[in-house]
Amino acid sequence: MTILVLHGPNLNLLGTREPDVYGKTTLAEIDAMVAEAAKPAAVVSFQSNHEGELIDKLQEQAWDGVLLNPGGFTHTSVALRDAISSIAASVVEVHLSNIYAREEFRQRSLVSGVCTGVVSGFGAQSYLLGLQALLKEKA
Amino acid sequence: MTILVLHGPNLNLLGTREPDVYGKTTLAEIDAMVAEAAKPAAVVSFQSNHEGELIDKLQEQAWDGVLLNPGGFTHTSVALRDAISSIAASVVEVHLSNIYAREEFRQRSLVSGVCTGVVSGFGAQSYLLGLQALLKEKA
Amino acid sequence: MTILVLHGPNLNLLGTREPDVYGKTTLAEIDAMVAEAAKPAAVVSFQSNHEGELIDKLQEQAWDGVLLNPGGFTHTSVALRDAISSIAASVVEVHLSNIYAREEFRQRSLVSGVCTGVVSGFGAQSYLLGLQALLKEKA
Amino acid sequence: MTILVLHGPNLNLLGTREPDVYGKTTLAEIDAMVAEAAKPAAVVSFQSNHEGELIDKLQEQAWDGVLLNPGGFTHTSVALRDAISSIAASVVEVHLSNIYAREEFRQRSLVSGVCTGVVSGFGAQSYLLGLQALLKEKA
Amino acid sequence: MTILVLHGPNLNLLGTREPDVYGKTTLAEIDAMVAEAAKPAAVVSFQSNHEGELIDKLQEQAWDGVLLNPGGFTHTSVALRDAISSIAASVVEVHLSNIYAREEFRQRSLVSGVCTGVVSGFGAQSYLLGLQALLKEKA
Amino acid sequence: MTILVLHGPNLNLLGTREPDVYGKTTLAEIDAMVAEAAKPAAVVSFQSNHEGELIDKLQEQAWDGVLLNPGGFTHTSVALRDAISSIAASVVEVHLSNIYAREEFRQRSLVSGVCTGVVSGFGAQSYLLGLQALLKEKA
Amino acid sequence: MTILVLHGPNLNLLGTREPDVYGKTTLAEIDAMVAEAAKPAAVVSFQSNHEGELIDKLQEQAWDGVLLNPGGFTHTSVALRDAISSIAASVVEVHLSNIYAREEFRQRSLVSGVCTGVVSGFGAQSYLLGLQALLKEKA
Amino acid sequence: MTILVLHGPNLNLLGTREPDVYGKTTLAEIDAMVAEAAKPAAVVSFQSNHEGELIDKLQEQAWDGVLLNPGGFTHTSVALRDAISSIAASVVEVHLSNIYAREEFRQRSLVSGVCTGVVSGFGAQSYLLGLQALLKEKA
Amino acid sequence: MTILVLHGPNLNLLGTREPDVYGKTTLAEIDAMVAEAAKPAAVVSFQSNHEGELIDKLQEQAWDGVLLNPGGFTHTSVALRDAISSIAASVVEVHLSNIYAREEFRQRSLVSGVCTGVVSGFGAQSYLLGLQALLKEKA
Amino acid sequence: MTILVLHGPNLNLLGTREPDVYGKTTLAEIDAMVAEAAKPAAVVSFQSNHEGELIDKLQEQAWDGVLLNPGGFTHTSVALRDAISSIAASVVEVHLSNIYAREEFRQRSLVSGVCTGVVSGFGAQSYLLGLQALLKEKA
Amino acid sequence: MTILVLHGPNLNLLGTREPDVYGKTTLAEIDAMVAEAAKPAAVVSFQSNHEGELIDKLQEQAWDGVLLNPGGFTHTSVALRDAISSIAASVVEVHLSNIYAREEFRQRSLVSGVCTGVVSGFGAQSYLLGLQALLKEKA
Amino acid sequence: MTILVLHGPNLNLLGTREPDVYGKTTLAEIDAMVAEAAKPAAVVSFQSNHEGELIDKLQEQAWDGVLLNPGGFTHTSVALRDAISSIAASVVEVHLSNIYAREEFRQRSLVSGVCTGVVSGFGAQSYLLGLQALLKEKA
Repeated sequence: MTILVLHGPNLNLLGTREPDVYGKTTLAEIDAMVAEAAKPAAVVSFQSNHEGELIDKLQEQAWDGVLLNPGGFTHTSVALRDAISSIAASVVEVHLSNIYAREEFRQRSLVSGVCTGVVSGFGAQSYLLGLQALLKEKA
Repeated sequence: MTILVLHGPNLNLLGTREPDVYGKTTLAEIDAMVAEAAKPAAVVSFQSNHEGELIDKLQEQAWDGVLLNPGGFTHTSVALRDAISSIAASVVEVHLSNIYAREEFRQRSLVSGVCTGVVSGFGAQSYLLGLQALLKEKA
Repeated sequence: MTILVLHGPNLNLLGTREPDVYGKTTLAEIDAMVAEAAKPAAVVSFQSNHEGELIDKLQEQAWDGVLLNPGGFTHTSVALRDAISSIAASVVEVHLSNIYAREEFRQRSLVSGVCTGVVSGFGAQSYLLGLQALLKEKA
Repeated sequence: MTILVLHGPNLNLLGTREPDVYGKTTLAEIDAMVAEAAKPAAVVSFQSNHEGELIDKLQEQAWDGVLLNPGGFTHTSVALRDAISSIAASVVEVHLSNIYAREEFRQRSLVSGVCTGVVSGFGAQSYLLGLQALLKEKA
Repeated sequence: MTILVLHGPNLNLLGTREPDVYGKTTLAEIDAMVAEAAKPAAVVSFQSNHEGELIDKLQEQAWDGVLLNPGGFTHTSVALRDAISSIAASVVEVHLSNIYAREEFRQRSLVSGVCTGVVSGFGAQSYLLGLQALLKEKA
Repeated sequence: MTILVLHGPNLNLLGTREPDVYGKTTLAEIDAMVAEAAKPAAVVSFQSNHEGELIDKLQEQAWDGVLLNPGGFTHTSVALRDAISSIAASVVEVHLSNIYAREEFRQRSLVSGVCTGVVSGFGAQSYLLGLQALLKEKA
Repeated sequence: MTILVLHGPNLNLLGTREPDVYGKTTLAEIDAMVAEAAKPAAVVSFQSNHEGELIDKLQEQAWDGVLLNPGGFTHTSVALRDAISSIAASVVEVHLSNIYAREEFRQRSLVSGVCTGVVSGFGAQSYLLGLQALLKEKA
Repeated sequence: MTILVLHGPNLNLLGTREPDVYGKTTLAEIDAMVAEAAKPAAVVSFQSNHEGELIDKLQEQAWDGVLLNPGGFTHTSVALRDAISSIAASVVEVHLSNIYAREEFRQRSLVSGVCTGVVSGFGAQSYLLGLQALLKEKA
Repeated sequence: MTILVLHGPNLNLLGTREPDVYGKTTLAEIDAMVAEAAKPAAVVSFQSNHEGELIDKLQEQAWDGVLLNPGGFTHTSVALRDAISSIAASVVEVHLSNIYAREEFRQRSLVSGVCTGVVSGFGAQSYLLGLQALLKEKA
Repeated sequence: MTILVLHGPNLNLLGTREPDVYGKTTLAEIDAMVAEAAKPAAVVSFQSNHEGELIDKLQEQAWDGVLLNPGGFTHTSVALRDAISSIAASVVEVHLSNIYAREEFRQRSLVSGVCTGVVSGFGAQSYLLGLQALLKEKA
Repeated sequence: MTILVLHGPNLNLLGTREPDVYGKTTLAEIDAMVAEAAKPAAVVSFQSNHEGELIDKLQEQAWDGVLLNPGGFTHTSVALRDAISSIAASVVEVHLSNIYAREEFRQRSLVSGVCTGVVSGFGAQSYLLGLQALLKEKA
Repeated sequence: MTILVLHGPNLNLLGTREPDVYGKTTLAEIDAMVAEAAKPAAVVSFQSNHEGELIDKLQEQAWDGVLLNPGGFTHTSVALRDAISSIAASVVEVHLSNIYAREEFRQRSLVSGVCTGVVSGFGAQSYLLGLQALLKEKA
C-alpha cells in the first residue's frame, strides 16, 4: 500500500514562515512523522509551488490514498479539484492552521467538496489524524 | 482529566436517520468508543435538541476539553459560539459527514472560528480523531 | 392514525397578538377545529416557544403525519429542518399569514425544502387545508 | 359565482411532461375535478403559453375568485403581478410541485406578494385546496 | 411626422386600477391629450398586455419617435430593450408613478439604457413632457 | 426527420439591425443555408417576437431536433426553459454573437441548463454548427 | 411664486466639461432659459460644489417649488435626501444626461425616492420639462 | 410598576468571560444596580441560555417595561423578535459592548426593529441608561 | 470640562421637520436641556449642514467629550469617521429616532465603529442619556 | 496554415476520468480526429496540467488559429485570458460537457470574453465544430 | 508650470493623528518636501476638510498637474471624481498608507478610475513619487 | 544589496501586446532602466508565465527588496500572496496600467494586502518609482 502526501505552495518554508501561524515543525519533520506512522504502508512525500506538478503527481500512479495540504491553492484551484475527482484514491484534505478562523477568503475550500473529509487546525498533528482516517478506511 | 462530548440536535437518532448520509453507528456506540479511547481520561457524553442545554452543559464545570458536534446549530448559533469563547477549555468541532460537500447553507460553520480545529467527514471516526487531537494537546 | 399538530413560538398568543396580521381565532379554537376535521384520526396538538421541545415532540413517536407551523423558527432553524428529514412522517408546513407578502426576511423558509408542501395565507383555514392534504395522502 | 382557473405555460402538457415532477394527472382531469368541487359555483378554465393572454383573461370580466398556477411566469412576470393587483378578485396561487424544494431560481415567486395565499406541493390536490380557500372566503 | 405612443401591460385599466398610485385619468384621455399636443404631427396609440405585440408594433414601420410606457415589462424584458436598439427612432421612456420611489424591484429599468431619456412620476403629464422632448429633438 | 429552427425576438430584423453586432446576413438567408445543409432532413423555420408562440411551436409536434436562438428571451424566460424540458427532442442553443463577451446581463442563459449544448459567437455559422451537432446525434 | 433652481457640483463648468456627455450649453444659458420659461413666476438659481450650501439654500425660505440637479451628490448624499424630505416644496429631480445609461454607480439616485418625479437625459431641455411639471402642479 | 430585566445566553458568566470585551462587573451586580436605580418600581431579573425561556418570560405577565440584552440571540432570533412584537410593553435593547464596532455578523440586530430604542457600548452603564429611558417614558 | 454637542445636517429644522419621525422638541430646547444637565461641565453646541464644518469643529480644540448626532452623514461619511478616530476625546453617537427600525440604508452607521457607544431611538432623551455616559466615563 | 489544439488540466485522462460526464473517447483519439478534419492545414496538439505551459505554447509561434479547451482553468485564469488577448490568432473555446448545465462555479468562463466564440456540450464533437469555425474564418 | 497639491479631510492633523498608521511627518513638512522637489515648477498646497473647497480649488485655475490625497473622500465622493474628469490636468492619486491593506471599505477608491495613476503605501514618500510621475509626464 | 524584479505572465510580450494599454517599451528595456537606476545595488530580473516559478524565485534567496508586477496573477493567486508573506523582503507591487480604471475583475489585487505599497498606472515609470520606494526604505 502506498500513500501520497502532497504539500502545496510555500509549505517548503515550514518552520521558518510565519511560525505563529504555522508552527515550528519543518516539512521534513512532518514527512518523517507521517512515514513512521504509516508503516507498514509506504509513503511518498512531494511538495511543489507549481499547481501543475501537484496535478501531475496525483495522476502519476494509482495511489492507495492521498493526504493533501493544498496550501494557497485550496481557495483558487478548480484544476486541482478536477484532478482529485479524476483519480480513484480517497483524498483527505489537511491544514495546519484552522482555516475557518482566518481571513474571509481562506474560509472556503474549492477542493473539500470532492475529498473524503477535512482535518484543519491541529498543526503537524493534522497530517497524522488525516493519515489515520485514510488507513482506517483501507483497513 | 475530564472530556465533555457534546452532541447537538437530532444526533440521538443516529444509526436510523438518513443512514446513507450519517452511517449506521448509533450514538451510544460512538459514546462507548470515545470513552474507551479516552482512557484513562474520563468522558461525559451529553446529547440535546435544546441549544440552551448544550450551552448550560458547556458552562457546567471546568472541562479539560470538549468534543463538539453541533449538528444543525453549526450554521445558526451565535449563542453557542459565544459559549465556546467564554470557557477556558479547548473545543474541537467534529462532523460525521463532510459538511463542505453538502448543501450551500451547511458549508459554513458559525462556531469553527472559535474552536481549536475541525474534523469533518469520517463518520464515527471523526470523533476519535478529534479526541486524539484534544488528548495530544493536553499531553 | 395519529396526526401531530405542532405550533411554534408565540402562537400561544394567537387571537391577541397583532390581530390585523394573524386574525382573532385562538390557538385552542384552531386545535378544536383541526381535531374535529381530522376524525376519525386522532390529533395531538402541541405548542412551544422552545425549538428543542418542538424537535423532541417530532421525534417522540412515529406520527402518521405532521402539520407544522414553525412560527419564527421558519426562517432560522436548520435543526428543525434536520428533525423533519430524520422522521418518516409527511410534514406539511402551514402559515396563518402569507409569509411571501411580508418582510424580506420572512419570505424564505428553511424548512419548506424538506416538507411535502406548504399552505400559507389563509388564517386558521391554512391548518384545515394542510390537514386535508395529509389525510388525502394517507387515504 | 364564477371562478377563473388560470394555468400558465406548459401546463397543457400535464400528465406527459416530467411525470416524476408534476404527476400523471392531465390538465383536463384537473379542470374536471375543480369544476365538480366548485359546484354550484361556475368555473372557467383557461390555459395559455402566452403571458399576455393570461393577463387579458384576468381582466376579461369581474371574476369572483381566481385560482392561478402561473407556471414558469411565477418567477419572471411583473406584468402578471400588476394584473393581479389591478383586479378586485381574490387570487390564490397554486403549484403542483413544492417550488421551495426545487432549483434556487424557482424558490421565489414574483406574484405571491399580491395573492391572498399560496398552496404548493400537493399535485392536483393543490388546486382543490386552493379552491376551498377561495370558496370559504366567499361563503 | 408620426409618433408612436406605446402602452404596456395593464395600462388599459388606467383610471380604475389602483387610482392612488396611477391617478384617475383613463388611457383614452391620455391618448387624446397626447394627440392634441402633438399636432401637426400624427400620433398612433397602442396598448397591449403582450410583450410580443409591443415589439411587433415597434418594428411595424419607421416611426419618427416613440413614447414608451413599458409598464411591468420595464423591469423584465430584454426583448423589448433589443427591439428599441434595433429601430432608428428615438424612444422616450415615461412612467406615471415615480418608479424610483416604489418597491425595490421597480427601481431598475432594463430599457432606460437604450432610450434617449426618462420622465417618471408626473402622472398623465409624464406623457406630455416626454412628447415635448421628442418633438424638440425633431424640430 | 424534421428539424425545427426557432428564432426569438427581433431576429426578423437580422441584416439590418446593429450589423456590427449581428452581421449582414438576413434571417431568410440563414434559413435557406440551414435547410440546404440539413438535407435530406426537413427543416421548419419559425421566428416570433412572442414568447408564447415560440413555446407553442416547440410543443406543436414531436420534432426530431431543435435549433434554438432565443434572442432576448435567453436571459429572462423560465417558461421557455420549461418548454424545452417538457419535450423529448434535443435542443441546441445558438447565438450569432458571443454572448459571454457582451453586457453582464447577457452573459447568463436561463435555458442552457436544459439544452444539449451551446454554440455562440460565429454569426450565421453558429446555426450550421449547431445543426451538425443535432444531425450527428441523430446519425 | 418663487422657484428655486439648484445645481450641484461641477455644473458651473457646463459647456466646457465633457461636452460629448453634457452638451455645450452653459449654466448661465440654462438659468436664463428657465427664468424666461417660468414667467411670471420668479426664479432663483444657485450652484455650489458644497453639499452643505445646497442644503442651506433648500432651507433658506419656503420655496414654491424646486428644480434640482444634484450632480455627483445624486448617488451619495443622504443629507440632501433628508433636506428634501424636510421642506414643504415639491422637488423635481433633473439630469442633463440619461443617468440610467451610464456607469453602474450612476444608475441609482439616493434622492429620487423623496422627489415628486425625475426627468433625465434631454440636456438643457430636462430643466424646462421639469419646470413645466412644477408649474403644472402649482396651477 | 414592574420592569423585567432579561439577559440572554452566556451573560451569567459576566465578570469572568472575556473581561476585556465585557468588563468585570458580574450579572448579580448589574441586577442590584438596576433594582436600586429603578426604585420605587419593582424589577424582575432573569437570565437564561434558552431562547424559549426568554420568550416564555416575556409572555409571563403584562410587564410595564422590558430591558433586554439578547446576547447571541440578537443576531439570530426571529422568534424573540416576534415575542417583542406580541407584547404591549416597551422593550429597550441594551448591549454591554458596542456591537457596531465588532465582527461583521454582530453589527446587525434582528430585534432592534421592534424595540423602542437601543443603548450599546457603555458596559453595565448601558443597563442604567436603558432603564432611565423606560422610566422616563412611563413617567 | 467642556463637552461638544455636534448636530449634523437638517437638525436645525428639528421640531418642524417630519414631527412624527423626529418629535416636536426644537434644537434650541435640546441644547438647553443638555447644557443644564451637564453642569458644572461647560457645553458647546454646534449645528451645521456642512460635513467639513463638523470636522473642523471636532478638531477645533481638545474636547473632554463629544455628543454626536451625525444626521444623514451617519451613513455616508468616512471623513467624519476619520475625524473621530483622529481626536483624543470619547465620542458618543446619538440618534433621535431608532435608526435600526427605518429604511435599510439608515440601519448602518459608518461612524459607530469608532465611537464609544450608541444611543438611538429615545427622541431628545437620547442626548441626555448619551451625555450621562460621557460624564460617567469622565467621573 | 497551422492550428494549435490546446488541452488544459486533466484532459490527458480523457476516456478514463468520469466517463459519464466526459465520454469514453481518449485525448489521442480526439487529436487524431481533429488532425484528419483539419487537412490540409497542419495541427499541433498539446496538453498540460501547467497553466504556464499553456501560456508558453500560445506565445510560441504565430498560430493561424487556436482551439482551446481550458479545462479547470476556464473559471480561474486571468493569465490565460491575457495570453489570448496578447496574440493575433483567433481562439475558439470548446468544452466537452455543457458547462452551463453544471455546478454554479463552472458556469462562468473567464476566457470567453476574449475568444471568438464558444462551443460547449457536444463531447469530442465540440472540437470538430470549433475547428470548422476556425477554418471557415480563415477560408 | 504650477502643480497643485491637494490634501483631503483630517490630513491637517498629520504627524499627531494615529502615527502608527500615518507616520510622524507633518503636513507642512510634506508640503516643504514637495515644493523643494518640484523646483523649478511652482507648487500650491491646499488642505481642507470640506469636499466643496477641494472641488473649488481643482477648478480654480488651469493647473499643470495635480497631486491628490483625497483622504476619507476617496471612498465616498462622486463629486470629486466628476471634478477630476472635468479639468484638463493630469491628476495623480496618492495615499500615505497602503489602502489596499486596510479595512474593506477603504480598499476601493471612487476616484482612481479617472486619475492617471495611483501611489499608495509609502508614507510621505508617496507624494514625492507621485510628483515625479507628474513631472516626468510634463517633461 | 540585491533587488529582485519579478514580472508575471505575458509581460515577456511587452511592447508588442496591446500597445495602447501597455505602451511600446519592451521588457528588456524596462529591465535595463531599472538596473541602471538601482546602481550600485544589483538587480536580478526574471519573467515567467508560471506561477510556481515566480514563487520559487521569491524563495530562492534572501532578497533585499522585490519589485513585483504580478500580471494576471494579481487577481487570482493566493499562493503568490502567501509567498510574499513568507519572505522577509519588502515587496512593492507595480502595474504599467492603472488597474483601478480597467475591468471590474482587474480592480482588486489579492497581493496588495501583504505588499508595502502599490504604484499603478505610469507605464514603465511605475517600475522606477517602485524601485525608488524600495531603495529609500533601505537607505
